[in-house]
Amino acid sequence: MLKGYTLPRTPRGTSSLAPTPPWHYAGHALAIEFEVNPDAAAAFLPPPLKLASAQCAAYFVEWQYASDDGAEYLDPVRSQYRESIFLISATYEGTPVAYCPFIWVDQDVALMRGLAQGWPKQIGSTWITRAYDLPSKASPIVGPGGKFGATLAARDHRLVEAQVTLREKTTKMPSPGFAKAVNTRYFPELAAGKHDQPAVHELVQLKSRDIQISPVWQGDAEMRFFDHPYLELPSLRPAAVLAGYRFAFALTVDDLVFLKDLRA
Amino acid sequence: MLKGYTLPRTPRGTSSLAPTPPWHYAGHALAIEFEVNPDAAAAFLPPPLKLASAQCAAYFVEWQYASDDGAEYLDPVRSQYRESIFLISATYEGTPVAYCPFIWVDQDVALMRGLAQGWPKQIGSTWITRAYDLPSKASPIVGPGGKFGATLAARDHRLVEAQVTLREKTTKMPSPGFAKAVNTRYFPELAAGKHDQPAVHELVQLKSRDIQISPVWQGDAEMRFFDHPYLELPSLRPAAVLAGYRFAFALTVDDLVFLKDLRA
Amino acid sequence: MLKGYTLPRTPRGTSSLAPTPPWHYAGHALAIEFEVNPDAAAAFLPPPLKLASAQCAAYFVEWQYASDDGAEYLDPVRSQYRESIFLISATYEGTPVAYCPFIWVDQDVALMRGLAQGWPKQIGSTWITRAYDLPSKASPIVGPGGKFGATLAARDHRLVEAQVTLREKTTKMPSPGFAKAVNTRYFPELAAGKHDQPAVHELVQLKSRDIQISPVWQGDAEMRFFDHPYLELPSLRPAAVLAGYRFAFALTVDDLVFLKDLRA
Amino acid sequence: MLKGYTLPRTPRGTSSLAPTPPWHYAGHALAIEFEVNPDAAAAFLPPPLKLASAQCAAYFVEWQYASDDGAEYLDPVRSQYRESIFLISATYEGTPVAYCPFIWVDQDVALMRGLAQGWPKQIGSTWITRAYDLPSKASPIVGPGGKFGATLAARDHRLVEAQVTLREKTTKMPSPGFAKAVNTRYFPELAAGKHDQPAVHELVQLKSRDIQISPVWQGDAEMRFFDHPYLELPSLRPAAVLAGYRFAFALTVDDLVFLKDLRA
Repeated sequence: MLKGYTLPRTPRGTSSLAPTPPWHYAGHALAIEFEVNPDAAAAFLPPPLKLASAQCAAYFVEWQYASDDGAEYLDPVRSQYRESIFLISATYEGTPVAYCPFIWVDQDVALMRGLAQGWPKQIGSTWITRAYDLPSKASPIVGPGGKFGATLAARDHRLVEAQVTLREKTTKMPSPGFAKAVNTRYFPELAAGKHDQPAVHELVQLKSRDIQISPVWQGDAEMRFFDHPYLELPSLRPAAVLAGYRFAFALTVDDLVFLKDLRA
Repeated sequence: MLKGYTLPRTPRGTSSLAPTPPWHYAGHALAIEFEVNPDAAAAFLPPPLKLASAQCAAYFVEWQYASDDGAEYLDPVRSQYRESIFLISATYEGTPVAYCPFIWVDQDVALMRGLAQGWPKQIGSTWITRAYDLPSKASPIVGPGGKFGATLAARDHRLVEAQVTLREKTTKMPSPGFAKAVNTRYFPELAAGKHDQPAVHELVQLKSRDIQISPVWQGDAEMRFFDHPYLELPSLRPAAVLAGYRFAFALTVDDLVFLKDLRA
Repeated sequence: MLKGYTLPRTPRGTSSLAPTPPWHYAGHALAIEFEVNPDAAAAFLPPPLKLASAQCAAYFVEWQYASDDGAEYLDPVRSQYRESIFLISATYEGTPVAYCPFIWVDQDVALMRGLAQGWPKQIGSTWITRAYDLPSKASPIVGPGGKFGATLAARDHRLVEAQVTLREKTTKMPSPGFAKAVNTRYFPELAAGKHDQPAVHELVQLKSRDIQISPVWQGDAEMRFFDHPYLELPSLRPAAVLAGYRFAFALTVDDLVFLKDLRA
Repeated sequence: MLKGYTLPRTPRGTSSLAPTPPWHYAGHALAIEFEVNPDAAAAFLPPPLKLASAQCAAYFVEWQYASDDGAEYLDPVRSQYRESIFLISATYEGTPVAYCPFIWVDQDVALMRGLAQGWPKQIGSTWITRAYDLPSKASPIVGPGGKFGATLAARDHRLVEAQVTLREKTTKMPSPGFAKAVNTRYFPELAAGKHDQPAVHELVQLKSRDIQISPVWQGDAEMRFFDHPYLELPSLRPAAVLAGYRFAFALTVDDLVFLKDLRA
């Protein structure tokens, strides 16, 4: 019997790109709330989602991941990855949810776990300023006036530059938040005549547990989206940038909520 | 309406990781026939496939790809990728087929197209000697005595080193061949309790058209598989290396043959 | 005794980043002649070089390299690299020469060999369309109408996009050519007070031997330089694009001509 | 006048790979003390350095860097890099010093700054476990029992794996330490006949200021060096692994001590 949560499935099952959940995550995030053209945002939502407001959020996260035995973070090329997440404020049957039109990661394992969750992941290059808790011109302070930057690029094009200047601690988390994002699981057919009749096309909602959040710092933010010849991310270019945040958090994923089959 | 052959699906449909087929490919390949422990190979086959023989093949390919308008190869970071493919000689209902236990590519687009075809793709680093058709100590000749190397690594571990010394032209292609490989399309569930009940689990056979093959050179080969802490590729380590090949080829993919639903 | 042409110097001398010359190279090049603002180009020339004309050339090259035993190209991660070279038409004591203000490679070995030659190399990402000599929508023909693209990026910013449409064979090579480029060898001091008094600062001229050139195709070209926050490449943005070329070539380097000490 | 601390030197001087010092650094380090075969270590020392003891140290560091205006860490692809440093215990004229036979970084800017300091830098891939200060199976604690790993690879070969289990705080720093390492500045000639007569070959000692050190954790360690076909790092394979450390630190570099001209 072949074993493995994803391909490749093998005799011992130790070769699968993504292991069987639970998947444990810890991350440092830089987040930015911004407003976009509401018509542009609405055009990205799959029915029956509706636009809730023009407010979007971008998250730039430096992650470390492990399955239950924690072995991955001791061989950190298996565990660490960086991610840029973009979220639109939507409603599903009247309930506020977040919807993700675009997301980039820099490791195949993260891409594969993401596909199972309905994240529309592509490979991209995310960089985020780090803090070192020592007085140095090479490190911002995690405190008032500390400046943090983040950038996103894909296929040798820079897509986004962001910057946050911390001002004060807050009990507020950025909104929309991604822990309960609504995603689309999608797996296409390749047989002739069925290219637009996917094998899987369903609306799902993320579910996580054991969420831990560090103190949250809030401040001013700037963000710039660059033009791109074919990616539609610039359609969600900021009309206004509202606020920036920095925090650490941890969570575990081993479940998902099915909402609706979207096949015709 | 959102458009796109894969995620992300967007208003204009130009952001999807993989575009709607047809997908056109041209590649330079270094291929190696080798024999493995037959019990080890048989253990990688999903029922109802049966082992046909101990003969396997490895292909190291430097690809260029385009959709119908050819735009990708003019922005070649979108188009070029390198791939290492390993194939086992199997039979399906008595018919000889190839089965792929392992395959590595170095671009996300190739990974996503591969998942639709059932290739168990992961991201890895493949390098293949090139020929330049000029007398130089920096280039082998494409002729008797010309030496070509290939290497595969994943997550900072070297997995395979191969070397082929060309001897003569041949009309034979390496066997097993990958054009009609039998793959497993697999898309897992993440909902609790369903981690081993995939949404999609089916045996399929590749189908391609407009196949073009250059003259084929054959020769002697060496190949070495390195140990690895968890990947099971070393189970298919060569017991004997039979022959090496070098050739170019092109093909188009826009169809797939469904063979059998493998869900319990 | 420690051995090695460059650091690290070690007991056996097999660990040096760059081995002792000769260095053998074979490459496929896409080249573009273009005109720039002459004042902008003149500002990049170190005295006593003078501007010869507004004509510059860009070369995008996919290289394979080996030292005398050829071992590198059998382990091609050691051997292959891609390069973008920009050249200004200058004169040295009345003789036409080429001067290189900017050059990017994607391997450390190429960077180190370059420093010894005075090339101002940085790490960047170059991609160049390949030809496969088979009829395919995934490959241009090497003939009239064949279209080839090249791109350059550094630190997640795209810097240049170029495209050449082949028209006819030519006996002309692009100008300025890089085989006899004049470079600046430069090695700074770090001792306090000496940051602007380099240990080495000399004008040199490249020298190569055993040059081999394939048939050369010429055609129309386009090229675009993107804005950049601090790199000065956009100062050399094309005012006009003249012609494009595609060819293969090979050469060997094991010498260099000293022209002038530039230290104050 | 052209400006720039290193090549490329340009009209505005903003394009140089490395800017004029001072260079400010902050880093998280995992360090390992180990013993090697003393004859093997002695063979790596340039005269007049002498071996002090069989004790070596390996440092795996995740750095952030900035010049005086701090701009680099807000565009962190310019600022962040990872490094693996190996040090031998030596004496120079009777004084204990550290000597670096091998060092790998993953950014060209770090490589270029390193050459000015005499570090024998090459490009390699270093990964180090991170801590997130939240209870999670994805993160070790910075405290007793917390486990941290590090790996080094170059050109698709894994070279080193290390693991540290923290036990207790200490006031001791790992030895040999790198802040005052003795290095060899080396810049070769390429003119024929002078390949072994470098333009620069001098023994220097590092100098830094404004050193800041976090609390230091000490514990047990394991470390494994893999075989390699030509790199001589395995000659320094651990005969015994002594202790492991984890700490953060910051420092500024803008000076260097000249010790001795090593040219014949």
